[in-house]
Amino acid sequence: MRQLADEVRAEMIDAVSQTGGHLGAGLGVVELTVALHYIFNTPEDRLIWDVGHQAYPHKILTGRRDRMRTIRQGGGLSGFTKRSESEYDPFGAAHSSTSISAALGFAVANKLSGRDGKAIAVIGDGAMSAGMAYEAMNNAAQAGNRLVVILNDNDMSIAPPVGGLSAYLARMVSSSEYLGLRSLAKKFASRLHKRFYNAASKAEEYARGMATGGTLFEELGFYYVGPIDGHNLDHLIPVLENVRDSEQGPILVHVVTKKGHGYAPAEQSADKYHGVTKFDVVSGEMAPKKAGPPSYTGVFAKALIAEAERDDRVCAITAAMPGGTGVDKFAQHFPERSFDVGIAEQHGVTFAAGLAAQGMRPFAAIYSTFLQRAFDQVVHDVAIQNLPVRFAIDRAGLVGADGQTHAGSFDVTYLATLPNMVVMAAADEAELVHMTHTAAEYDDGPIAFRYPRGNGTGVELPETPERLEIGKGRVLREGSKVAILSLGTRLGEALIAADELDAKGLPTTVADLRFAKPLDTALIRKLAATHDVLVTVEEGAIGGLGAHVLTLASDEGLLDAGLKIRTMRLPDIFQDQDDPKRQYEEAGLDAPAIVRKVLEALRHNSTHVEAGARA
Amino acid sequence: MRQLADEVRAEMIDAVSQTGGHLGAGLGVVELTVALHYIFNTPEDRLIWDVGHQAYPHKILTGRRDRMRTIRQGGGLSGFTKRSESEYDPFGAAHSSTSISAALGFAVANKLSGRDGKAIAVIGDGAMSAGMAYEAMNNAAQAGNRLVVILNDNDMSIAPPVGGLSAYLARMVSSSEYLGLRSLAKKFASRLHKRFYNAASKAEEYARGMATGGTLFEELGFYYVGPIDGHNLDHLIPVLENVRDSEQGPILVHVVTKKGHGYAPAEQSADKYHGVTKFDVVSGEMAPKKAGPPSYTGVFAKALIAEAERDDRVCAITAAMPGGTGVDKFAQHFPERSFDVGIAEQHGVTFAAGLAAQGMRPFAAIYSTFLQRAFDQVVHDVAIQNLPVRFAIDRAGLVGADGQTHAGSFDVTYLATLPNMVVMAAADEAELVHMTHTAAEYDDGPIAFRYPRGNGTGVELPETPERLEIGKGRVLREGSKVAILSLGTRLGEALIAADELDAKGLPTTVADLRFAKPLDTALIRKLAATHDVLVTVEEGAIGGLGAHVLTLASDEGLLDAGLKIRTMRLPDIFQDQDDPKRQYEEAGLDAPAIVRKVLEALRHNSTHVEAGARA
Repeated sequence: MRQLADEVRAEMIDAVSQTGGHLGAGLGVVELTVALHYIFNTPEDRLIWDVGHQAYPHKILTGRRDRMRTIRQGGGLSGFTKRSESEYDPFGAAHSSTSISAALGFAVANKLSGRDGKAIAVIGDGAMSAGMAYEAMNNAAQAGNRLVVILNDNDMSIAPPVGGLSAYLARMVSSSEYLGLRSLAKKFASRLHKRFYNAASKAEEYARGMATGGTLFEELGFYYVGPIDGHNLDHLIPVLENVRDSEQGPILVHVVTKKGHGYAPAEQSADKYHGVTKFDVVSGEMAPKKAGPPSYTGVFAKALIAEAERDDRVCAITAAMPGGTGVDKFAQHFPERSFDVGIAEQHGVTFAAGLAAQGMRPFAAIYSTFLQRAFDQVVHDVAIQNLPVRFAIDRAGLVGADGQTHAGSFDVTYLATLPNMVVMAAADEAELVHMTHTAAEYDDGPIAFRYPRGNGTGVELPETPERLEIGKGRVLREGSKVAILSLGTRLGEALIAADELDAKGLPTTVADLRFAKPLDTALIRKLAATHDVLVTVEEGAIGGLGAHVLTLASDEGLLDAGLKIRTMRLPDIFQDQDDPKRQYEEAGLDAPAIVRKVLEALRHNSTHVEAGARA
Repeated sequence: MRQLADEVRAEMIDAVSQTGGHLGAGLGVVELTVALHYIFNTPEDRLIWDVGHQAYPHKILTGRRDRMRTIRQGGGLSGFTKRSESEYDPFGAAHSSTSISAALGFAVANKLSGRDGKAIAVIGDGAMSAGMAYEAMNNAAQAGNRLVVILNDNDMSIAPPVGGLSAYLARMVSSSEYLGLRSLAKKFASRLHKRFYNAASKAEEYARGMATGGTLFEELGFYYVGPIDGHNLDHLIPVLENVRDSEQGPILVHVVTKKGHGYAPAEQSADKYHGVTKFDVVSGEMAPKKAGPPSYTGVFAKALIAEAERDDRVCAITAAMPGGTGVDKFAQHFPERSFDVGIAEQHGVTFAAGLAAQGMRPFAAIYSTFLQRAFDQVVHDVAIQNLPVRFAIDRAGLVGADGQTHAGSFDVTYLATLPNMVVMAAADEAELVHMTHTAAEYDDGPIAFRYPRGNGTGVELPETPERLEIGKGRVLREGSKVAILSLGTRLGEALIAADELDAKGLPTTVADLRFAKPLDTALIRKLAATHDVLVTVEEGAIGGLGAHVLTLASDEGLLDAGLKIRTMRLPDIFQDQDDPKRQYEEAGLDAPAIVRKVLEALRHNSTHVEAGARA
């Protein structure tokens, strides 16, 4: 077993050194992975990795070793667990804190259908901050011994493991005799008056809790076992064996691990080696990032810091993504005005609403895909009350190697449908600076601005940000035949397409609408009246900009007499990870696709075009 | 104070007896409301009622007594708290479990701007099951003594109050001397090694916890005080006074109350008097409900029970709304296959995904407005994995007296934008039976069906449910000039409108599309080719059916040569509570509005219509 673990670890380091990806989390659970597969009867027992970025060792052990070097690449293995990849991945993930709910579903389904088989959720201590995990724990008791939760505590944020004594205690409290005893005691005590029961059972739990630290979990109805050293197979195996064979449950096993364990560079700098680019195995040195324009995230951080310097009401909220959103940089300047709420988007948004209601100017900086977690809070606490919460929506649109679970495809649709909401999209990093400023200054209600993953286009950044007029777009080039209405960063492709169309004798106008809501109705009306073809382009799913433009056009009767109008948007599939360029190609959102769309529209029904007069 | 409380209670009973509304919850907090306003400096101190349906006494005390008899009526007071109603309502509510997050926002804003003023959240024990409350508690420590959480425990689900001893203990542990002592002990202990700190601070907390039962809250960083009798002003006042003046915080005050307190009929039957129709004050007898067609909820429950009788894989999930969703009736027949997860929509949906992944046929029965809470789970756990979770979406569309916070306006938009998702809407209760059956039998991926609040149309219910063909609509009447494409229960109005249009010499086709996704493309194509005007009608916001039909039409070039197409949808406002008929009138979604829309379309640009040939 020890040897197997060492081989898995070496294989994983080698593979990730060639591909990049998540390193530290996987290295931390090598022994746990080996032990879980050894003790439990996977895939019949359902092993569910929360988030799934720590599942590289699991993939190596479950028939995917030969494909490890394709990870996060087009056509390759996902960086997370995925049902379509393996029967050993019963439930895919990527967003945090879903594993206990899912495992409970498996366990209860087994119970209902009289099947054997357990469900094991492995969840990190960070993921425990999400309300969803708490909701699941609150419901777990019904699963009985079919549910096992492994708390992978790699920040030692709950309690440190304490060597031999702790291991002994964990083995002892996980033994069937002891669990039976606890169960008996609970049953006996519950026959007494509730208050005495509480006192009696708590006395027992507190006594253990003081040694082991698991009171919170016991309060939620789990049998708590641990903490144990997650790198010591001699400690892990007997405890997991006891847990597997227990008549009691659900059981929470508190396992303490170290991120990056067994690879010195990663152990020494857990943060740096959480997600890596290609690196040299011996030295640990990562391939230098290509020089280039600054990232959108970085530009946003700088812009927000500038706003906060001007205005002490500006503050920033992140949900456990300080680095990813740039709030870490903001926090260096304004520690008191920056709030990392943990993996808790729901709370984060309503907290921001409270701040806004008391006169602050809060920016909730949340990835598009994660803002989905707080949709009801956006509707109920922000939009209905028309509170000026600023939503800085990073990772909007396709996200390359991060894949389908992280794509920010829906935000324009789910935000622009809400009354009171203003929705912007930045076409480049200079626009992002203007939009950050516009949002800061806008106190009339909620306002959102989206921008993509990755680096900017290299445009010059403005020295003084501009306050954009709400609901007004801009025209970048003027033509007469074709009008491209762009929202967000597909603008560059729209401009390339326009050049090609011009060259084909189709003088093309390109407008950056800037706002999906409110629309620049005057501009759209004018372009519709003066061009033969209108094409909207956006990096979002159906229901967004294109739908709003079409709705406006039909409301106003612009379609009555004929309008060649097309909407270009993300396709109706969850696109797989790939190189961004190929993703855009697949989505049909690059310059050649825009040209094709225009030409097809012009060819289509061409006899009718001439018949259709324009208003 | 006692007299004031008695008067408030009498006034509230009298008002609600005339209007109907929420009764039990308000009666339970009369003394608490009086005490809070007496002790705290409202409105500068921000008092935030979770959900807000218990805030009737608060409204009486804060200048709204003369309008109490307008509650939940058009133009009247809201049944919940609402910012626009009063400066004493600093944060509106209606959905559960938002109060701590919001209060934290107010408290932190005060801290940042150096203002005095506390934020007090009053939250029920049921609301504590939502992950959002847990996320907020996890973040509360930073507020210090500016935040007070009142846990209004009216199920006595956490611990019963225990008379004099408990009151004495609560007063003692809330005193500044004691709180200071605890703070000192914590600070002192934290200088020691973390482990010793844990042991030391826990020993203290456990000792208290055993007497008072607040360990869970202490683990989350609160000072816990209680439980105290929420109807005894002599107990409440001194404790709240101590809490107000404390240097330590945040403090959680555990107050035990009884729903319906002080009104015998409501005390004896808390469930029945939670929400009431008009009633006789002396006898407590409620006005009998008008006889009429069965409610959609009831029809769904019966239909689901029938499915479950045929198929033991069918199960039902509700998030704390067993009565509202009909899952209570299902549970009477199939207790083991029904799951009330508490106010925990996020968990509920992913739990359903787990059940589906293990071969069950789960129905997640959730109101449209509450499903917003689980949007990310719908995307990430259900749609991406294409798992056959059935979403039974009750209260879709406008909801009359329940008002803007409960309207189900966005579900078609936020669901139909997702790949893999099937979205249906029932036009009447017979359709609901068919759709329940269709969903049960559909194993290819997620499927949702929406239906409104209130009673059916009175159509005959089918003896044997029909399995609908996915993505196929039906034509109810055929015309040649006008085609109305209806989704959901506006169908009745569409048919009335069609009769009127016929009478005006405009033979009108009415189709019930049944599916917002996938669309019946063949039918839409055909109707577009053979009619002069197309109008879509739906009870949902922009981005739904109309947007999808327009997108299809533009994709296929149906607009190129002219198509008089209009979409009728909910207006871009959060509509206030009102009589449903007036709400539809305001929304422009009744038969007269449909007729007007068609006539306007025909008049508009009529010279061009003749020019526009059809494909």
